[in-house]
Amino acid sequence: MFPCPISEGDIGSLSANELAKLHQTTHFLVEKAKTARHFLKASGHPLPIAQLTISEITDDKTETDHFLRQVLNGTDIGIISEAGCPGIADPGAEAVSWAHIHGVKVVPFAGPSSIFMALMASGFSGQSFAFHGYLSNKNPALSQQLRSLESAMLKTGQTQIFMETPYRNGFMTETILTTLRESTRLCIACSIGAPDEDIRQMSVARWKGSDTSVFHKRPAIFLIGST
Amino acid sequence: MFPCPISEGDIGSLSANELAKLHQTTHFLVEKAKTARHFLKASGHPLPIAQLTISEITDDKTETDHFLRQVLNGTDIGIISEAGCPGIADPGAEAVSWAHIHGVKVVPFAGPSSIFMALMASGFSGQSFAFHGYLSNKNPALSQQLRSLESAMLKTGQTQIFMETPYRNGFMTETILTTLRESTRLCIACSIGAPDEDIRQMSVARWKGSDTSVFHKRPAIFLIGST
Repeated sequence: MFPCPISEGDIGSLSANELAKLHQTTHFLVEKAKTARHFLKASGHPLPIAQLTISEITDDKTETDHFLRQVLNGTDIGIISEAGCPGIADPGAEAVSWAHIHGVKVVPFAGPSSIFMALMASGFSGQSFAFHGYLSNKNPALSQQLRSLESAMLKTGQTQIFMETPYRNGFMTETILTTLRESTRLCIACSIGAPDEDIRQMSVARWKGSDTSVFHKRPAIFLIGST
Repeated sequence: MFPCPISEGDIGSLSANELAKLHQTTHFLVEKAKTARHFLKASGHPLPIAQLTISEITDDKTETDHFLRQVLNGTDIGIISEAGCPGIADPGAEAVSWAHIHGVKVVPFAGPSSIFMALMASGFSGQSFAFHGYLSNKNPALSQQLRSLESAMLKTGQTQIFMETPYRNGFMTETILTTLRESTRLCIACSIGAPDEDIRQMSVARWKGSDTSVFHKRPAIFLIGST
C-alpha cells in the first residue's frame, strides 16, 4: 500500500524502503489513474509507465476482484490513493478487506497523512482521538454534530477530528465559531505538507479575532481537543 | 517533529526531506536520550552526537519551558519520541501545546506510526475511527470496555483501535475472544514495520481457531471494525 504524497510532486516524502518496493511493483490498483501515473513517473520507476498495469478502483466489485486475483498467482499489487494514505478515508479499504479474506499479505508503508500530521501538530491528546471524516454541510445538523463532538471531548478528553471540502471551509469555520464554547480549543491545519502549510491552534475566542478567510479553498483538517 | 523509526535501526523509513531537516537541527527535545542519540547517529547527522543538545522530556514543566524558550531566539528544536510519531500516544503533545501558546511554528514530518499503519492494513473503515490507547488490564473492567467499543462500532461503523503492553497480549487476546461476538471482525497488527510483521484480520470465530500465542511479548495494535 503506497501513500501518495499529499502535496503535489513531493517525492521527497517517500522513504528509501518505499521507493525500492514501488520500483519492484508492476501492478497497481489506484483511485485515479492519472495521479498514479504522475506519481510513478516522478518517483523514477525503472519501467516505462506504459508498461505498468494500472487499474482504477471502481464500484464494480467483480472487476476489482478479478484484478486482485492476480496476487494469488504471486504478482504483488500496489494500492495508491489520491492523497495521504490508502485505506484512510478513501476506497483502498475494500481492496485490503479482499486481501484479508483471501489470505493475502497486506504490507502498509508509512507516509504522509493529513489526519495524522494534523493531530501531531495540534498539541491535542494523541492518547485518545476520533476521526469523523466529513460532517454535515448544512445547519442545524452541522451545529448539532459539532456540539456533540465538543461534549464528547469535554467529557472524555478525546480529541475530535473532522474535515470539510476546501470551498466550504468558510461555512464550516463560521459555524464552528458561532456554535462552540469560547474556551474550546480549535486547531485548523491547512495545506499540510505544502509550502504554504499553516497549522494553528487556539481557543475559539481567539480564533474569532483572526482572519479565517485565508483558509478559503485550501485543504484543511479541523480538530478540537484539550491541552 | 521527527518520527523515530518504529522498528530498530530502520533509517530507511525516513524521507529525503526529513533527513535534510534532521541534519540541519542541533537541538532536540526527546522522550529517551539514548534512543534519540542512536537514531541521530544512525541517520548520519553531520555533527558529532556529543555536539548536539539533547534534552529529555520530564514532568518538570519549568525545565521543559526553559528548554523550549530557545526556539523564541530562532533555534529550531526537533522533537523525537520513542517510537512512531511524536504527539501521538506520547509526551510530545505538551511541547507542541507550548509552541502554539507561544506562537511558534510547528512542523510535523510524516513517518511510521503503528496506529496508522495498522488501520491502513486492517481493511476496516478509515472514514471514521477512534483510538483509545490502553484499555483496562483487569476484568471485569476490560470486558465491559470491549463490549462498549463493540457496541459503538456496530452502531456507527466506527473502527475502534486500542493497544496493550506486549507481555499482556495473551490476556488481552483471550478476553477479546471470550467477550466479543463471533461475527465481530478483529485485526491484530503485530510487529508493524519489523521483519516479522504479522497483520491479520478475521472474525472472532476464526481467530478462536488460530494460534494467538505467537503474539506473546510482541508489540501489537488491536482493531475491531466492519468491512
